[in-house]
Amino acid sequence: MSAGIFSEAGLFVCFEGGDGAGKSTQSRLLHDWLVAQGRTVLLTFEPGDTEVGKEMRRIVLDPATGHLSDRTEALLYIADKAEHVDHVVLPALARGEVVITDRYVDSTLAYQGAGRTLDVAEVEAVARWATGDLRPHLTVVLDLEPEAGLGRFEERDRIEGQSLEFHQRVRQGFLALAAADPDHYVVLDARAPIDEIAGAVRERVEPLLEGR
Amino acid sequence: MSAGIFSEAGLFVCFEGGDGAGKSTQSRLLHDWLVAQGRTVLLTFEPGDTEVGKEMRRIVLDPATGHLSDRTEALLYIADKAEHVDHVVLPALARGEVVITDRYVDSTLAYQGAGRTLDVAEVEAVARWATGDLRPHLTVVLDLEPEAGLGRFEERDRIEGQSLEFHQRVRQGFLALAAADPDHYVVLDARAPIDEIAGAVRERVEPLLEGR
Repeated sequence: MSAGIFSEAGLFVCFEGGDGAGKSTQSRLLHDWLVAQGRTVLLTFEPGDTEVGKEMRRIVLDPATGHLSDRTEALLYIADKAEHVDHVVLPALARGEVVITDRYVDSTLAYQGAGRTLDVAEVEAVARWATGDLRPHLTVVLDLEPEAGLGRFEERDRIEGQSLEFHQRVRQGFLALAAADPDHYVVLDARAPIDEIAGAVRERVEPLLEGR
Repeated sequence: MSAGIFSEAGLFVCFEGGDGAGKSTQSRLLHDWLVAQGRTVLLTFEPGDTEVGKEMRRIVLDPATGHLSDRTEALLYIADKAEHVDHVVLPALARGEVVITDRYVDSTLAYQGAGRTLDVAEVEAVARWATGDLRPHLTVVLDLEPEAGLGRFEERDRIEGQSLEFHQRVRQGFLALAAADPDHYVVLDARAPIDEIAGAVRERVEPLLEGR
């Protein structure tokens, strides 16, 4: 794994974790806290926060799509990332803004790599190429047993409908990424009270704001 | 470049070249000649000869899509290839059939690599991963000056509407691929009479049929 590219202008923060772990809630709370301090903040998500991304998301998640090749699925998610980085994330970072994204490259490594059992190093090489190797200054992994997260949904899409073993591999995928790079990751227990998690996130983000 | 994977069961033949070079005509003629000999032949094309591929083709070629990131475009084409190889090409080859495809990996290397000026080696690494490095036993490059080929279209889609310089880089991209691997390529002048081209194609295909 290369060292990666980190924006020198804006701050890039990512939330990762399984379904139902509270990523969108925590992204929103961090966004509101930063805005209250007068920061310009872009709250975004993958997959699908571009026009093309919406179409790709629809293709991949629609149960009617049927059996996609594992590599096709990975490449569609990665195409979404290329578009998202070039047209949304990088322009905002270049303007010196804070960018908070709900999912990024790690989701592809965990779901399409560890989950689907594609070779994670090969998927990573493609995803790094697609994103110009842009890395978040901080990735917050909201860690949750798959049983707990999936229980929150009545209806599941094509990814959520995978086996429990799949979602357990995904969880271990996120934890392995965090363990390999503690300077840029924090793992938080997603079952903790919302305010407690939000406080722990702010504690890691605050020092990164200095000089920005 | 690695040596690639060649099917040991079926025969895999690819037609490449710029727009208007006669690829679909020559693919059809080769198909008909082989069928007349009692061969089982699958005539297919990229991009778009799968359900998902049709959707991707629509996204990429629709002028309304607007400016796609170069890497997004390359990844969408490559996702189409992954799906096409896994669900169409490989099953037919495994059944011992002849597969004739109108465009394959080289089109991505020429259009999204040489044409868009992405790093061709990087695009190739992604495309080889996506296709499991499956290679055609023979690729026929129908070579034509871009001025001649593009003149055949009244309306151009988003790719065809690129500059003449773009299409000249694409042509040189195809020629460079052929020059690097003469055992698996033949370059034919697309301005020659249709029957003459078809004869030259058959001459290269015939010895490949022995033992299959």
